[in-house]
Amino acid sequence: MGVLFHKLECSLDNMYVVRSGRYSRSDFYVLLLMTLQIVLQTVEGVWPLPRTITSSPERYPLSPQAFYFCYGRHSAAHKGCSVVDAAFRRYFSLIFPDHTSASGPLQFGASSPFTVEVNVSQDDCESHPAEDSSEKYYLSVTARQASLNADTVWGVLRGLETFSQLVYQDGFGSYFVNKTTIEDFPRFKYRGILLDTSRHYLPLRTIFKTLDAMAYSKFNVFHWHIVDDPSFPYQSYSFPDLSKKGAFHPMTHVYTQSDVRRVISYARLWGIRVLPEFDSPSHTKSWGKGQSDLLTPCYRGGGPSGSFGPVNPALPSTYQFMARLFKEVSSVFPDSYIHLGGDEVDFSCWRSNPDIRAFMKKMGFGADFNKLEAFYIDNIVKIISALNKTSIVWQDVFDYHVGRASLSVVEVWKEGCYHCEVYRVTKAGLRVILASPWYLDQPGPTHNWARYYTVWPLAFGGTEQQNKLVIGGEVCMWGEYVDATNLSPRLWPRASAAAERLWSNERQTSSVDEAFPRLLDFRCKLLRRGIQAEPLQVGHCSHEYQGT
Amino acid sequence: MGVLFHKLECSLDNMYVVRSGRYSRSDFYVLLLMTLQIVLQTVEGVWPLPRTITSSPERYPLSPQAFYFCYGRHSAAHKGCSVVDAAFRRYFSLIFPDHTSASGPLQFGASSPFTVEVNVSQDDCESHPAEDSSEKYYLSVTARQASLNADTVWGVLRGLETFSQLVYQDGFGSYFVNKTTIEDFPRFKYRGILLDTSRHYLPLRTIFKTLDAMAYSKFNVFHWHIVDDPSFPYQSYSFPDLSKKGAFHPMTHVYTQSDVRRVISYARLWGIRVLPEFDSPSHTKSWGKGQSDLLTPCYRGGGPSGSFGPVNPALPSTYQFMARLFKEVSSVFPDSYIHLGGDEVDFSCWRSNPDIRAFMKKMGFGADFNKLEAFYIDNIVKIISALNKTSIVWQDVFDYHVGRASLSVVEVWKEGCYHCEVYRVTKAGLRVILASPWYLDQPGPTHNWARYYTVWPLAFGGTEQQNKLVIGGEVCMWGEYVDATNLSPRLWPRASAAAERLWSNERQTSSVDEAFPRLLDFRCKLLRRGIQAEPLQVGHCSHEYQGT
Repeated sequence: MGVLFHKLECSLDNMYVVRSGRYSRSDFYVLLLMTLQIVLQTVEGVWPLPRTITSSPERYPLSPQAFYFCYGRHSAAHKGCSVVDAAFRRYFSLIFPDHTSASGPLQFGASSPFTVEVNVSQDDCESHPAEDSSEKYYLSVTARQASLNADTVWGVLRGLETFSQLVYQDGFGSYFVNKTTIEDFPRFKYRGILLDTSRHYLPLRTIFKTLDAMAYSKFNVFHWHIVDDPSFPYQSYSFPDLSKKGAFHPMTHVYTQSDVRRVISYARLWGIRVLPEFDSPSHTKSWGKGQSDLLTPCYRGGGPSGSFGPVNPALPSTYQFMARLFKEVSSVFPDSYIHLGGDEVDFSCWRSNPDIRAFMKKMGFGADFNKLEAFYIDNIVKIISALNKTSIVWQDVFDYHVGRASLSVVEVWKEGCYHCEVYRVTKAGLRVILASPWYLDQPGPTHNWARYYTVWPLAFGGTEQQNKLVIGGEVCMWGEYVDATNLSPRLWPRASAAAERLWSNERQTSSVDEAFPRLLDFRCKLLRRGIQAEPLQVGHCSHEYQGT
Repeated sequence: MGVLFHKLECSLDNMYVVRSGRYSRSDFYVLLLMTLQIVLQTVEGVWPLPRTITSSPERYPLSPQAFYFCYGRHSAAHKGCSVVDAAFRRYFSLIFPDHTSASGPLQFGASSPFTVEVNVSQDDCESHPAEDSSEKYYLSVTARQASLNADTVWGVLRGLETFSQLVYQDGFGSYFVNKTTIEDFPRFKYRGILLDTSRHYLPLRTIFKTLDAMAYSKFNVFHWHIVDDPSFPYQSYSFPDLSKKGAFHPMTHVYTQSDVRRVISYARLWGIRVLPEFDSPSHTKSWGKGQSDLLTPCYRGGGPSGSFGPVNPALPSTYQFMARLFKEVSSVFPDSYIHLGGDEVDFSCWRSNPDIRAFMKKMGFGADFNKLEAFYIDNIVKIISALNKTSIVWQDVFDYHVGRASLSVVEVWKEGCYHCEVYRVTKAGLRVILASPWYLDQPGPTHNWARYYTVWPLAFGGTEQQNKLVIGGEVCMWGEYVDATNLSPRLWPRASAAAERLWSNERQTSSVDEAFPRLLDFRCKLLRRGIQAEPLQVGHCSHEYQGT
């Protein structure tokens, strides 16, 4: 191969040679190219914007034939660290897109090697990203070497993404990176995207592709709204009838245990948490198909009408079922959060049912169905607590819930004065995830990206203490009119606008005009990586999306 | 192979065996499957709806191992007919999607053969589809045989599309077709889709994919809005600088002569005309980059401002350039129509320029710039006439044009009372293409498909004679916010709603409620064929789009 090794800080033992070329570029040729420099390419920037970034026009050529990732001598993680090893492989292809697709002997001579040395303080290689995982990283790019330091492997992933965005090609296709120093960490620790696999089933590869794109924008939570009224695609091992009878199709439109494990494992390698939502007591029509006596029979004219309402909160069997289901869910999904839903409960069916009314009387709830709902939710929250998990609920539960003591995290989703709601929830000492301004499932012209960018999550006038309770935000992609055919262009790059709001310093990213060229450039990077990100205005990218 | 040949009407010589299987299904197994028939599959229908369709519950099994296309004994077209041969190949895969993707010995026994026999009256195999090409066909499906008769090969294509939509699979994956008789012809002869390759460059494969999907909805004109202000991707052999300097990129973002030929040839095989638009005198900013003295220099404060306006109508060189360009265009594009644009001319730049004002004076136009525009357009139309082509213009030209005698076809695109405009244009004895109700480039929720369906092109209150002048309609997909990333879901299935309006009998297709289940089914067929057609409501298709 004839590849010369540069004197490395990191030991050769930890050297991670992703790919070595059959041909190496001659110094002469590199010199020639560098002398030519007809158009000085500059770094267009990183999206989302890092906390501090110092870069200089001094640039270094990179060659896929002499590019190495390695672990530093003092790194707690070493070769064999699943998360980082996999990231090295992925980012090599992302950094050198031409190389992996190119074939044939178009490289000449020998290049000076360039090494990205990674140092991690914690050996959390086999863990899952969690609520409080540090994502902080420090990246320094100098001649022949980049140094990437982080507390955790998740920080390494964020740093590698940033590094990959710093690399660019000139008009001849040669790769460069500028001398750069970056210190970076997220503004909010929860940066999520909700996908809805009940209203339309999403094939696994669509989910994987979305996870890829999420990582490019540094999202770190996949909120999996896995079941709802229309279908129950989650294949439960405790209650196989739920998907057998409740999925659109019991074989082709389900997520098997193996599928779910693959999603969690794939997401983990991108540093993305998978947060399952099993929404109840409403939004459960599909549950009723595979689990009799779970839903409330609605009455009309003195008898059952044949239709069903929300989960029946009056039956002990309901809670036995839920305890068993959530025990399974809590063991299948490693994340410490479980989303319980709790939104949009219509009381009319409960009200129509004499057994429910009798239960209300017995419990002393009077005619206040909010109390019945609170009773139900309290029971479910207790089940979740006993499983040592944190529950999230939609804001409805907070709004109508009588005893709020059992709640932990509230997701604010309603339109109108969402700041007011954030104020109230944090005032009550509960944590908030903000979704209201980021309902992207409705199609809109792509140039309205600024609407999702000019969102100020902490502008609700709370105390410092209240601000700290806003743990992040979430883009919601509901599935009424969204499936694998249109998910990507509807999400990207508009979701990336939200991503920067959630990651970057607000003062440094308050200008739409300043952000726009960087977002245009980032959108081209997404195309280059095969993501169907919509155009933001008239124009072009050097590599257009090539379609299917 | 052991395939038994059924006694055929058509000679074996003309037999077209697309694919023969290595294994054949046992009669026993077929019998078993047919006896099971747990769910009787029915034909969901054809989109767009044929004129007359008679079908019965009697169904015949089809097997890819024993399925044949052939030319009838008395057909004017025979084996070797490029259009029909290619269609046989394509439709075999479309009819048996599992077969082409499946591998392995999952077929058993022998099946009775099924033959689709094609009879064409004219041997127009090597021609291009044209304005007056008949698309009429007659299709009869009986036991073991289908008979497809048409005047032209274009009618054969429409009939094969219909036949392919009649075939369905049962729950076991077996293929069936019901006994059916169809007589069909289009309501309007012009059924177009406009793609804009100037505001965003569309890769060839995106254009090909769109042509595929167009054929599935029986569209027959690709209106190629190939150049405009932002870029000039058409690589002219007479004026290579136009794309060299006017394209987004002179190498990667152009359509070479070979590319254009490929598009025309690909479209021809689907029976689709390619109608080029070279819009002038406005919408020509990109032209000015590669052709000096073509655009009008705008003046400000007594001198040229440095910016340019519409094409300069005062210079003889303009008409020399246009004559040469359109001579090239008319030889490159075989279609008899050329679209001249002519929309949205802003007079302010012309008005600012002293040379233009002097020319106005000399010509006796006074201060009426409409007369100047008319003078320009008249000259261009004359050029086109001399080339033996028919010109189409946007309605602006009709609206502001002084002498309308030279016009032929007017495309109505403005919002508001488009019926009024159709009335006026047809009253003047000119032909109309209606585009106003079908601007699909703006994103919208998919469930607004009915808006594009409930359009009544002839409801303008004209005479029978005027009605005949409405030659069809067109879906416009402008490119400001559309490129390869989002074109398909934005077009499909909403454009299919327009397609049925343009093909089918209006009285038989006036009900949105009746059309909806058929459109849902058709959208699933599009997914099965790899077209990214958006969902219309909550639900699923047996084969979801698998993404990229």
